[in-house]
Parts: sequence; structure tokens; C-alpha cells
Amino acid sequence: MRYLTLCSIEEAKSIVDEHIKKLKTKIEEVDLFNAIGRVLAEDVFSEIDVPPYDRAKMDGYAVKAEDTYDAEEDNPIELKIIGSLRAGEIKDLKINNGECIEIATGSIIPKGANAVVMVEYTERDNGKVKIYKPVPPMENIQFTGSDIMAGELVLRKDTKLTPRDIGVLSAIGRYKVKVYKKLKFGIISTGNEIISPEKPLEFGKIYDINTYTLASYIKNLGYDFEFFGIAKYDKEDLKEKIKKALKCDIMKLNLGTLENFIYSLSFNIYSVWYFYSQWIK
Amino acid sequence: MRYLTLCSIEEAKSIVDEHIKKLKTKIEEVDLFNAIGRVLAEDVFSEIDVPPYDRAKMDGYAVKAEDTYDAEEDNPIELKIIGSLRAGEIKDLKINNGECIEIATGSIIPKGANAVVMVEYTERDNGKVKIYKPVPPMENIQFTGSDIMAGELVLRKDTKLTPRDIGVLSAIGRYKVKVYKKLKFGIISTGNEIISPEKPLEFGKIYDINTYTLASYIKNLGYDFEFFGIAKYDKEDLKEKIKKALKCDIMKLNLGTLENFIYSLSFNIYSVWYFYSQWIK
Repeated sequence: MRYLTLCSIEEAKSIVDEHIKKLKTKIEEVDLFNAIGRVLAEDVFSEIDVPPYDRAKMDGYAVKAEDTYDAEEDNPIELKIIGSLRAGEIKDLKINNGECIEIATGSIIPKGANAVVMVEYTERDNGKVKIYKPVPPMENIQFTGSDIMAGELVLRKDTKLTPRDIGVLSAIGRYKVKVYKKLKFGIISTGNEIISPEKPLEFGKIYDINTYTLASYIKNLGYDFEFFGIAKYDKEDLKEKIKKALKCDIMKLNLGTLENFIYSLSFNIYSVWYFYSQWIK
Repeated sequence: MRYLTLCSIEEAKSIVDEHIKKLKTKIEEVDLFNAIGRVLAEDVFSEIDVPPYDRAKMDGYAVKAEDTYDAEEDNPIELKIIGSLRAGEIKDLKINNGECIEIATGSIIPKGANAVVMVEYTERDNGKVKIYKPVPPMENIQFTGSDIMAGELVLRKDTKLTPRDIGVLSAIGRYKVKVYKKLKFGIISTGNEIISPEKPLEFGKIYDINTYTLASYIKNLGYDFEFFGIAKYDKEDLKEKIKKALKCDIMKLNLGTLENFIYSLSFNIYSVWYFYSQWIK
């Protein structure tokens, strides 16, 4: 029954390394809804600044900072409100000394303004607003490119994408990214005594456990699998199933009593990786 | 723009609890290839013993233990081989004193035998075998039901199935199990300044980040989601999208600058759970 030829651990490792190199040439493009857990096949640079414009960090009033320097809690200064800006609104507004613009969080800072006074330190009064606290220049403004600058490398090739990484990709408007194709595992169960849990138990048989356990691990890790059935301890049956499973990237034989012939190579998966031996050629 | 009515944390929690109770009545059946990460909606009892018969734990010879008591390393005893058994083979064999049967790991222990001598302590010689080591009764036999007994509760309702649990289910021949339906999250993004990362950036806009980050978390946890698009700060638009999303089990509004109106309730997910307020009715 000993069909399989053993090789040294070193040889096995080099076969695996070779194989992995080949897998890395298989690349596809996925969109952000399907990118979770996938491995980047490209360095990703941002083509835009994030945020792409100077934004208000708070709800309040866009002002010239110097206009507020004399403001005190019991002696507010007063500015004229010349307009309002909500997030997403584009208006050609400009403020001069003594003026301000009502502004919502996320809005574009209007020309002439260099700070935002939080609404909590103001009191509105008929086209004017009282300011109770001075602000220094740049206060409550999130500047263009302060999160990510145009040209910046944001994610490196070979990164396994987390939800956070996908947030970054969406922030820079990269809706599609190049990733390595998902590994596909071929699973073959072997053993004359093994039967599928779909069937009633017969005397002398036991149910196939490895296939379902392993498939669950593979699925849990985000990889694909295909099950090629239970092979008898029969050279031809085994050979035929292995030949079919060769279309997969990785093959796992659940060898049962032949288990001692397997060399385990751990590669980011609770599993035994099995590489077809020479006799299959 | 303040459409939403706040409620107390206690009230929110009780709404969530009510809602979760309802979700638990939605049950479906899945097979073992699709059971990973799903939550059992039934207690699972085994209908069989595992293993279902007394099995050889080792390759070797099934013997009557008392026949081997005089065996010594330099003075082996000799037994007559009356047959052989491989895993999965069913033969009506019985051994008497002075006899043995060649047996492979996993095979059914033949009648008359009460121990297995490992092949390493034997030497075969023309229809006979020399035994170099005595074995006590029960040695190298895995008894019927020693892993799981018929009638045993193996998995409790509300268990989130791991690959190990799925191994157990296959071991007892439960190919299909009842599980709660997968939660489906409805995602709505909101904000006049938000645009999809599928589109070129326009001045004054920023890309939708929350949708993709959240969808990735949801997917990572094995749940489903549906994205209902980006709503403007417009009561009718928002209302319409929420109405569509009501078919989902859970709704998440990415409220942007309205974020301060959301109460976060953590439920096995990095997310904000948002329950539609009364005005939607």
C-alpha cells in the first residue's frame, strides 16, 4: 500500500516555496466589498489628499483668528454673519475683518478664515454673533492632506487586508485593488472504512471527520475548497482523485492509517499540506 | 435636521433584547460544509457510539492477552496467524488460544481477541508470528463509545460552531443541523458631502469610508450585509432608504455629522447598532 515516496524536509520546503512563488503570479481585481482578508498584490499610493480640502472640525463660526483675540467670557466681541456653510456645500464666500460664516463640521473653510470658533462659545443675535472666547489661528481646522498626502504609500504589497485597511482604500477612492487569487484547497479523504456522514452508518465503517473539520478551517480562513470524495485504498482510485484535485492550489489527503507518510508543513493554516509525490506524473 | 428621537439606554437595551429574541425564531438547516460560524438552534445528541465498534489502535496482531504473558525479548512466544483484517473489512473471524489475526489500525477487533500487540514487537515467520512482549487485556484497543456514547449530548443549543464542533457533528453522522438564520445588516451612509469611492472626487466632497469599513467587519464575522446607498441630509431620502433597509435584521446609519445622535450598543461586532426611531412609522 506504500505508493508514496518520501523526500527530505528541505526538499519538501523548497517545493512549497516554489509553489507559493507560482501562486503569487495569480492576480485578480476585487472591489472594496469583496476585499476583506485578501492579500494585496500591489503597493497602493494615494492620488489625493485626505481630507481633500481644509475642513471645519467643529460646528461653529469660521473667523479671522485675530478678530477674536479680545473676546472674553464677560466681554464678548461681535462679528457679522455673512453666510452659512454646510458639509458638501460649495459657495464662493470670503470673509473680511469683522465678519464670520456659520459653518458645520466637515464644511470647506471659506476664504479669509483661518480658525473656527465652536458654537458652544458663541451666541447668535439677529445677523450677528457674539464670540466669548478667543481662538488662535488654525484652531478647529483639519488641514488638506493631514490624514494622507497625495503620493503617499498607504498600503504595501503582500498586506492581508483588514477592515481598517479597507477604510483607508475607500478614503483615497481606490474602489478596486489587485489581490492574489484565493488559495483553493482540494480535499480527498481516504480509507476503506470511511463513509460520508450523509449516509446511514454500516457495521465496520466510521464517519469521515477530517474532511468537514478541515473544510471548516479553510472556510474560516477565507480560502476556498473542493471535496473530491473518499478514496479507497486503491492505487487507481486514489490516482484518479488526485489527478482531478491537481487543479487546486493545494491538496490535502486525509490519509487515515497512511497518516505517517505525510510531512506537515504549517503555512498560515491548521492543516497538513500535502504535495503530490513523483509517482503521479 | 434633527429627525431622530433619543431614548434612554435602558429602553434601547430592551428594544435590542426584544429584537434578538425575535431573530432567534428564524431557523434554517445547513449541511456540514456550510455550518462554520453558524449558531446551533438545537441541542445535538449522538445517536451512535463513537467509535461504533472496538477498534485496533495500532497495526499489529489481535491476540488473547493471556497467550502473551510469557513472552520475553530474548524468548518470544509463537502464535499461529489465522487471518488478517484491514480497516473497513468485515470478516467472521474468531481466535482461540495459540492463535492471532494480523490487524491494521482502525480494524474491528475480532471475536476472541482482547488485546493488540504492536507490529514493532513481533516478527513474522511463515504463517506464524513471534511475540517479544506481553500485553495486558484491553491493550491497544479503542472501545465502542469511548469517544462519544449513544444518547450523549454533544453540542448545546446556542453554540457558535467551530471547526472542532463540525468534526464532532460529522463523527456522529449529523450531516445537517438546525441553525439560526444569519444576521443581515443594512448599511446606509448619510451626508451631502459623501461620495462613493467608485466616483472621481469632486471639490468639496469626501469619500464614503464607513460603509466599506463596516461591511468588511460584518463580512469578517460571517454575517451578511446590504448597502442601501448614500442618503442626503433630506428627510424623504433618508426615510425611503430606511424603509427599504427595514427588511434587514439590523440597520446601521453612518450618520456623519449626526453621529452624536447615535447610541452605540456593542453586540459581538465593532459597529454601532441603530434602531429606527418612532418617526419612521
